[in-house]
Amino acid sequence: MKLSDIATLIGAEFSCKDIEITSMHTLKDASKSELSFVANAKYIKDIATSNAAAIICDEKTKEYIPEDCVALVVDAPYWEMAVVSAEFAPALEDLDSVKAIVGEGTQVAPTATLANGARVGKNSTIMAGAYVGSNSVIGDNTILYPNVVVYRDCKVGNECIIHAGTVIGSDGFGFASNRLGEHKKIHHIGNAIIEDDVEIGSNTSIDRAVFGSTLIKKGARIDNLIQIGHNCEIGEGSVFAAQSGLAGSSIIGRNNVFGAQSGVAGHLEIAPFNTFAARTGVTKTVKQSGKTFAGFPFMDHKSWLKIQVKLARLIK
Amino acid sequence: MKLSDIATLIGAEFSCKDIEITSMHTLKDASKSELSFVANAKYIKDIATSNAAAIICDEKTKEYIPEDCVALVVDAPYWEMAVVSAEFAPALEDLDSVKAIVGEGTQVAPTATLANGARVGKNSTIMAGAYVGSNSVIGDNTILYPNVVVYRDCKVGNECIIHAGTVIGSDGFGFASNRLGEHKKIHHIGNAIIEDDVEIGSNTSIDRAVFGSTLIKKGARIDNLIQIGHNCEIGEGSVFAAQSGLAGSSIIGRNNVFGAQSGVAGHLEIAPFNTFAARTGVTKTVKQSGKTFAGFPFMDHKSWLKIQVKLARLIK
Amino acid sequence: MKLSDIATLIGAEFSCKDIEITSMHTLKDASKSELSFVANAKYIKDIATSNAAAIICDEKTKEYIPEDCVALVVDAPYWEMAVVSAEFAPALEDLDSVKAIVGEGTQVAPTATLANGARVGKNSTIMAGAYVGSNSVIGDNTILYPNVVVYRDCKVGNECIIHAGTVIGSDGFGFASNRLGEHKKIHHIGNAIIEDDVEIGSNTSIDRAVFGSTLIKKGARIDNLIQIGHNCEIGEGSVFAAQSGLAGSSIIGRNNVFGAQSGVAGHLEIAPFNTFAARTGVTKTVKQSGKTFAGFPFMDHKSWLKIQVKLARLIK
Repeated sequence: MKLSDIATLIGAEFSCKDIEITSMHTLKDASKSELSFVANAKYIKDIATSNAAAIICDEKTKEYIPEDCVALVVDAPYWEMAVVSAEFAPALEDLDSVKAIVGEGTQVAPTATLANGARVGKNSTIMAGAYVGSNSVIGDNTILYPNVVVYRDCKVGNECIIHAGTVIGSDGFGFASNRLGEHKKIHHIGNAIIEDDVEIGSNTSIDRAVFGSTLIKKGARIDNLIQIGHNCEIGEGSVFAAQSGLAGSSIIGRNNVFGAQSGVAGHLEIAPFNTFAARTGVTKTVKQSGKTFAGFPFMDHKSWLKIQVKLARLIK
Repeated sequence: MKLSDIATLIGAEFSCKDIEITSMHTLKDASKSELSFVANAKYIKDIATSNAAAIICDEKTKEYIPEDCVALVVDAPYWEMAVVSAEFAPALEDLDSVKAIVGEGTQVAPTATLANGARVGKNSTIMAGAYVGSNSVIGDNTILYPNVVVYRDCKVGNECIIHAGTVIGSDGFGFASNRLGEHKKIHHIGNAIIEDDVEIGSNTSIDRAVFGSTLIKKGARIDNLIQIGHNCEIGEGSVFAAQSGLAGSSIIGRNNVFGAQSGVAGHLEIAPFNTFAARTGVTKTVKQSGKTFAGFPFMDHKSWLKIQVKLARLIK
Repeated sequence: MKLSDIATLIGAEFSCKDIEITSMHTLKDASKSELSFVANAKYIKDIATSNAAAIICDEKTKEYIPEDCVALVVDAPYWEMAVVSAEFAPALEDLDSVKAIVGEGTQVAPTATLANGARVGKNSTIMAGAYVGSNSVIGDNTILYPNVVVYRDCKVGNECIIHAGTVIGSDGFGFASNRLGEHKKIHHIGNAIIEDDVEIGSNTSIDRAVFGSTLIKKGARIDNLIQIGHNCEIGEGSVFAAQSGLAGSSIIGRNNVFGAQSGVAGHLEIAPFNTFAARTGVTKTVKQSGKTFAGFPFMDHKSWLKIQVKLARLIK
């Protein structure tokens, strides 16, 4: 899409040399042909080192944009970013792409759907009603149980087991809001990647990234009815018990264990090798390892036990 | 169904002129050809103004029924209401209805099912394995991702996005119980209505109403794995983050925001423009606007923060 | 599978007379042709009375194995049990089994799948996209709404209603872990059994047992988005409201009522006729009946209310 057309779409002034914009990304990850945006003062620091060809910003932030980068100045950068995201969202299916390619020994049920451009490796099983979207790749020796849905452009590795009704790659919960209380969808251009040897239970939801990838690393174990928000990263061998949830953009180190009905807020980092008891609500980044936490807001497990004893005494 | 047959079915005495009963409804909403019931003393006040043709009640409540309305007196009105509800529940699909009608530009995947009597508007997409029940209506420019299920008699508006595995219009959790601990299903004769510009995440459940409609108003945003109970109403632009839940018959004003894993008890009313932090458990009606709440039982967010500080001190 | 082959597979010494091992089970339930294991000191007491033909154990536990039972001594019995479980797991579908048998008056949607060996009773309805696995049995007058998945070898009784997107018989969350943080899947050889007159909401997950059965007894009512872990037993007429969860191996007596978003830890026993308020987190076995509980960790409901009053005073 031409940068001049983007400028017109969002009502920004534009007088530079026109260029072709290939996609959108964060300031940090945008390439030289991509558009980015700054909608929050805490990201101003990322502007100077960004490779973005152009940046959507407001009047106040304009001064931070370097000379070799086009500033598209608008009143509401987050809203306008959402507007532009629709332009880069792919079609629901690549109808023109080649027919799905299926490896040797793989069984695909008659009611399963492999969209054009999908690929499935060897000796895998795609059971009844499962769906694999355009350009998504399923590895070798992997099982998609009935009615599993893998949205387009996602990846599931080798030796994975995905139980029935689980959804991989649905859009994350992202939108810009205005003063009228209206919401503008942020189209999710990223994807979700499940590495090798991951087992995911039934009726779990793993959202795709806004830009980049939601990533479930090798050997993770994810139970039933779990929410993994957009842009999360789950470390190797980490374990999530049923009905736990992860808000967006949190990074979980390797071999963490989350009990049932626990939750992690967004944009946190959890160091490796910790345990979170059932129902723990993690509200801050964890830099230590080898600890056990509990409660909401979460704390050291022993402190939580002490508080329960104190509370029990309160009523005597 | 004839009123005399209903009386026979539930063992009530009947000596009036017989009439045809077309359906069932609450005291408040029953029309002149409908049957209603009173099974809880707090609804006695609604009897006098009810248009119902007949009311199932017990011996004690009989005296409140006006002369122009038939009282069907039984020992257990709630149980007998459940018994009669089965008689007014439609078939699972209207096999005799006309074939589904699909608007111009709409794509329906070969493995999707549109039951007889279903209608889909223009330029919509019904993806693989999705199901639209009899007499349900899907608007224009709407997407049902793979394996979405819309039960019969429901409505999804224009410009809606419903992500994979979400279920709209499943029966609410309603039954009458007797002293033996047995449960009698209350058939859900109502439906679920999703207005325009609503996005609903993956694996979410929105139950149909017992009578009337469960209603999700224009511009609402509902994330993954969310429970919306029967007869709830969600105001315009309201936002529910993942794994939150709404028990039955609660009315949420416009532009409320509910954090992840929050919950709202049944039969409450929430005024517009409030925010409920993650994990908030709302236990009472909220009449104020512009507030932020947290905790369970819920309270002002600042109070909740103060309590956490006090609790932390308890163990020092 | 020959016992000598099992010994080779897990690197255990073997010098006894070889026998054919038909399956695996717990010490308590293993038959004379089955293999069992002991991986936790608390089960040593079950060894003496076990009928198992052979037991996987470690060097320390070996002395408890009686003479007429073969001890397969390994360093990590739980891990090796997981290794062997893969050998007894059946194929995803019994392709060689007879075609599914469907009773008189039963309707099966064209996009529904009945795997070979499945059986459906009379006057039942299997709606679009539903799946019934090999050797699973669905009773009479039962409804599987669209996209319900019943894994192989499970049973759903008569007069049951299973709402859309619900999964019955997915593998439980079971694996052995080693010091490298790797996880070895424990294949779930057991099944899930739903007795007569059970209604289950939409998008609920009921896991199959490791060995034996997960059991939902007659007349139970289970709402939407609920987790029932492997090997649980739910008593007659018990009620679970939306988003509640049950970890593995808990036994719930008859006519218990669990509020929304409540949870029960694993390996507990709950006596009949108790009520657990919304959000209750049950952490211990309950031997009383007729009580109401609340809070997490759970307590008498009145005590919980008192604590809330005290907490409210703390900040005044």
